Amino acid sequence: MPYGTLYGIGLGPGDPELITLKGLRILQQSRVIAYPISRQGDESVALSILERITSLVGKEKIELLFPMSAAEPAALKIAWEEASRKIAAHLEQGKDVAFITLGDVVLYSTFIYLFEVMREGYQHLKVEFVPGISSVSASAATASLPLGKGRERLAILPAPFDQAQLKKSLEDFDTVVLLKVSQVFDQVYELLKRMNLLDKAILCQRIGLEGERIIHDLSTLVGSKVDYMSILMVKK
Amino acid sequence: MPYGTLYGIGLGPGDPELITLKGLRILQQSRVIAYPISRQGDESVALSILERITSLVGKEKIELLFPMSAAEPAALKIAWEEASRKIAAHLEQGKDVAFITLGDVVLYSTFIYLFEVMREGYQHLKVEFVPGISSVSASAATASLPLGKGRERLAILPAPFDQAQLKKSLEDFDTVVLLKVSQVFDQVYELLKRMNLLDKAILCQRIGLEGERIIHDLSTLVGSKVDYMSILMVKK
Repeated sequence: MPYGTLYGIGLGPGDPELITLKGLRILQQSRVIAYPISRQGDESVALSILERITSLVGKEKIELLFPMSAAEPAALKIAWEEASRKIAAHLEQGKDVAFITLGDVVLYSTFIYLFEVMREGYQHLKVEFVPGISSVSASAATASLPLGKGRERLAILPAPFDQAQLKKSLEDFDTVVLLKVSQVFDQVYELLKRMNLLDKAILCQRIGLEGERIIHDLSTLVGSKVDYMSILMVKK
Repeated sequence: MPYGTLYGIGLGPGDPELITLKGLRILQQSRVIAYPISRQGDESVALSILERITSLVGKEKIELLFPMSAAEPAALKIAWEEASRKIAAHLEQGKDVAFITLGDVVLYSTFIYLFEVMREGYQHLKVEFVPGISSVSASAATASLPLGKGRERLAILPAPFDQAQLKKSLEDFDTVVLLKVSQVFDQVYELLKRMNLLDKAILCQRIGLEGERIIHDLSTLVGSKVDYMSILMVKK
């Protein structure tokens, strides 16, 4: 019996309509659905979106616990190895496994860590990336703010940002996209103010999810708690 | 009668399965399909992909000529204004118009130019971006080369590249994606060689299209004609 394939599937930003036909087909064909949670007892956002897209009746589900904290890399490594063992067992029984993740699977997804562990320990098993709409692309589309045209240069930076590096990117690039900006919003705001870029910046919050908002006047956010699912875009 | 909406729809990289459910639904609902060609008598790649996705029976088609050459910006401006007039006439008759483009509509698409002209001259008409899978994302997925994880930084640069700027980006960023690299491949190859980055680079050619190829040994391409639809990825 041939082995199954592990698919990493980008579900898109949260709007169930933003999955691709390919992602949907593979999810419907796969016998096992794997999804990450970051804390025991938590609900998986990816799974709740998937349930709005397609029926999961008759599927096996594998819940995989990945603590998000980078504080304990050893514990995280053990979690990934445990997850890859569970998945490999299903693949070796000839079942395809679809691992679901929000956004695009090649861009800052949980799946990338799993892929790396699988590549090391399970070379005999096939792993495939199925691209999805990233939160970056969905945010730009919702805000009608193109990321780049012609010869424009685009930088994508995840927080936390080194201030000097961030300043350099804001100088060198036409468009700068800042991911996970919530943790450091106030500092970024001050930098943009100093660089006279506030009127070139917007914050896209929870795009594709409940509570979606585009904020043009960033001063209204200073001192408040910025949503974790926020992307800041600066287009000169 | 309410005006129609102009939708800019990213079809994805060429694989008909990589369109989103939303893009497909809007294409099926729209009465008018608009598409760009770069030379009189040319076939539209976007249109030929669309024909594999869905039936166009009963749709009105608008072919829009946009010379790709940046040599004559005045002629190009006239072409965009002519296109926006045609499209506005349909929208004002209450018909939705779907403008199709390869890849992601927010990332280096033809639609961005049209959007800008519409925003200037036709503020009363609604324009919406519908995101698609970019050739960058599809290339990374096909090559199993994630674009970034954790705190990694990503730069996307379209050719032609200023050599000093390119060197700086290759130093500062974890992943650098070079678009339209065919025109300047040999110079880029020399720079990567000098920077000792050749074994970190791959070339993705015609991803999602006929002739799709991933090339790991870039030396095999030196001196040859590199396909226009090529993306070079450097991941340190």
